[in-house]
Amino acid sequence: MADRQAVFHLNFRKWPFKGGFGIACGLEPMIEFIDAFHFSDSDLSYLSSLKDSKGDALFENGFLDYLKDFSFNLDIDAMEEGTPVFPYEPLVRVKGPILHAQLLESPILNIMNFQTLIATKAARVCWAAKPDPVIEFGMRRAQGIDGAISATRASYVGGCESTSHVLGGKLFGIPVRGTHAHSWVMAFDKEQDAFEKFTEVMPHNCVLLVDTYNSIEGVKKAVEIAKQKNGNDFQLLGVRLDSGDLAQLSIHIRKVLDEAGMKDVKIMASNELDEYLIRDLKQQGATITIWGVGTNLVTAKDQSALDGVYKLSAVQDANGKWQHRLKTSEQTAKSTNPGILQVRRFSKNGKNIGDLIFDTLLGVEETPTGLDILDPHYQKCFSGEYEHRDLLIPIYRGGKLQYQSPSLHDMQDRTMKELGMFEESLRRFLNPQPYFAGLEKNLFEKKAEIIRKIRSQ
Amino acid sequence: MADRQAVFHLNFRKWPFKGGFGIACGLEPMIEFIDAFHFSDSDLSYLSSLKDSKGDALFENGFLDYLKDFSFNLDIDAMEEGTPVFPYEPLVRVKGPILHAQLLESPILNIMNFQTLIATKAARVCWAAKPDPVIEFGMRRAQGIDGAISATRASYVGGCESTSHVLGGKLFGIPVRGTHAHSWVMAFDKEQDAFEKFTEVMPHNCVLLVDTYNSIEGVKKAVEIAKQKNGNDFQLLGVRLDSGDLAQLSIHIRKVLDEAGMKDVKIMASNELDEYLIRDLKQQGATITIWGVGTNLVTAKDQSALDGVYKLSAVQDANGKWQHRLKTSEQTAKSTNPGILQVRRFSKNGKNIGDLIFDTLLGVEETPTGLDILDPHYQKCFSGEYEHRDLLIPIYRGGKLQYQSPSLHDMQDRTMKELGMFEESLRRFLNPQPYFAGLEKNLFEKKAEIIRKIRSQ
Repeated sequence: MADRQAVFHLNFRKWPFKGGFGIACGLEPMIEFIDAFHFSDSDLSYLSSLKDSKGDALFENGFLDYLKDFSFNLDIDAMEEGTPVFPYEPLVRVKGPILHAQLLESPILNIMNFQTLIATKAARVCWAAKPDPVIEFGMRRAQGIDGAISATRASYVGGCESTSHVLGGKLFGIPVRGTHAHSWVMAFDKEQDAFEKFTEVMPHNCVLLVDTYNSIEGVKKAVEIAKQKNGNDFQLLGVRLDSGDLAQLSIHIRKVLDEAGMKDVKIMASNELDEYLIRDLKQQGATITIWGVGTNLVTAKDQSALDGVYKLSAVQDANGKWQHRLKTSEQTAKSTNPGILQVRRFSKNGKNIGDLIFDTLLGVEETPTGLDILDPHYQKCFSGEYEHRDLLIPIYRGGKLQYQSPSLHDMQDRTMKELGMFEESLRRFLNPQPYFAGLEKNLFEKKAEIIRKIRSQ
Repeated sequence: MADRQAVFHLNFRKWPFKGGFGIACGLEPMIEFIDAFHFSDSDLSYLSSLKDSKGDALFENGFLDYLKDFSFNLDIDAMEEGTPVFPYEPLVRVKGPILHAQLLESPILNIMNFQTLIATKAARVCWAAKPDPVIEFGMRRAQGIDGAISATRASYVGGCESTSHVLGGKLFGIPVRGTHAHSWVMAFDKEQDAFEKFTEVMPHNCVLLVDTYNSIEGVKKAVEIAKQKNGNDFQLLGVRLDSGDLAQLSIHIRKVLDEAGMKDVKIMASNELDEYLIRDLKQQGATITIWGVGTNLVTAKDQSALDGVYKLSAVQDANGKWQHRLKTSEQTAKSTNPGILQVRRFSKNGKNIGDLIFDTLLGVEETPTGLDILDPHYQKCFSGEYEHRDLLIPIYRGGKLQYQSPSLHDMQDRTMKELGMFEESLRRFLNPQPYFAGLEKNLFEKKAEIIRKIRSQ
């Protein structure tokens, strides 16, 4: 049984953040996980120590021996990082011996769910802030050490310009940015002294955090210092707000800076920001042009998890013939799609117009008018005039890596470029226009047939 | 300046989950972080590569040399893991050279914020489920790999009985539990065959997942098998639901099991559970007695981050005299407490009745009627009759570890025992009775005096 060929797909079911798209992310860490995967002696020793309810060994020695030399022998296809993705579209397809494919379930769900969640959140936040840059500021309230590290990575794929997380900068080559802490100011007897000392140690990277005691007074002190010192050896780059009414304060501070002739000094702000607050602050005339977004980005506050699943969709029978499989459920949304799936994205004049989820076992049904999506949510037909490409591309064949991940910067470029190929209405925060992504006719009918069969039993 | 003595405190500000308490957690991982901390050659090489806006090196070589041999020389006091804690009470106090203390800010916030958040959430979920056990089930949707590992740890400290996360089980000695996957059932041609095969491979650990196609039909098949096989070599321990109306289904299933004389077969359930849903399901007569709680626990869905901060509260001046420090703010809640703080917990007849946050520099003011809390939210007075203990205990002195963490199991015992020393009204989910935890008179007056001084400048 362990060697029987099977196919699993990883997909999410709900539109993340009630928005109009997800951003596929996590392929490179998934590859790193798979390539490093093995059972160490201490793992095997732990597993052999586990007992069942009668006190007998939970696992047979033969199974533990099998794990000792285990390495994955799978065909894996996946969407490239930075690809916009929609509910029920497979982000990853895994094919091979069922035991191998099953072992991957929990770890790749962990990796893909979180990376995709944060890349999607970052794309939303950056969209709200555009054309201003967003700095990811979340490390200290992220969910654990790797919660911080991996959120820094995904935030960059989703569009953030930089991070305050220095280890993230080192590991991923992401630009690092930041200011001094409140404690820098509080360590001195006077705020003025703290600012002056900072201008000495950071003459060309000087952004002053002005809200330790009173933001407006803080800015006035920053202006005084800049008046005295601005020149070849020093330049005040900006001031940062971290509390209070960021709209009113930034408008006031902009005025103070402009009246002092410091139109180039930027205003950076942070404080529980997310895409909604940034949009509102901009509407209220906030003059902030650098946004530090932390907790709400890296923990995806309004939806702390993607609901990704990893489900069996086909198995080979004893004769090597593929059998479709699906899970039904009391909850319709938890039903799965059968087959060996692929996603075909159609576009015209550089704009994407619809995705077809199809089963490679059944092929794509061509009708006189084109290719049908039969999903009742999306009755749509593509005639042959459209361009198309298939989104799942080969990553592993027989356990051998076929794919070289691009740089993180190229992934970010993909996110920006590909999002630009959709209608802007997709990116609206409230009631975005749903993009057409549905089941191809043959697949739809096969699924209905299997459900009828299960229900009738 | 780098060597000047300073004191920082780590505390949160808002009641987690709008509830009545937090559970301090994260001390042992914090100790592990501190003991392992150093700047590696590759760290230093990365830092030396960073440039300022003019293209000059961001850090001087002298500073990088200093980091090369760096190790912490700090006095650290902290609350033990499993201690109930309230807003503004320091969980950790750090004293020593300001540069040393400052370097800890981001990492220990990351560790303590998340561990405390999840231990608190777990205590709430376990309270809702009691006397039934809760299994932590969250790995596949946790926030990154360490988001899963560290959530497994904190969930156990907060009261979970076990975890489905095998690596977490190995690392922390937590009991591991689980069932087969839906794919086990789907891999076979018939559900019946899948169940039978599972009873063969797991005769003494057999919990059957019955909702792959239809929960009631699934249970009927499980009953048939148990009727044939139950005996010395096999015992059906339980069935598990993972979708549908868990109240109605479990009532129906209990009836099917009882009518078959299988009163000992337990019903386990999972599916987007949290403390509120468990409470409601119990109120609606659900007959579930084992609760698998995943995503909403390990990502703390309704509050994905604790708002912990780490703030400077005192510095020594050139004469070695301690100077109080605090940060004011446009937002009152962001003002900090000055001094070198301690938390004194008062109890009577085994019940805690109030906490006093006091400044060890100012001491505790004794009045004719007792010890005053002057915080306007909590006008309370403890006379000498109450027992009391101080919650911050020595962890490091001069960089040397003074503390041995108890076992994780002992931490869980502390959580249960200490929560039992508070009124139950503290644990209500809606409008819990706030516990008295406020500033001691001398500290309150000192803080008011400093704020007046800052405001008048």
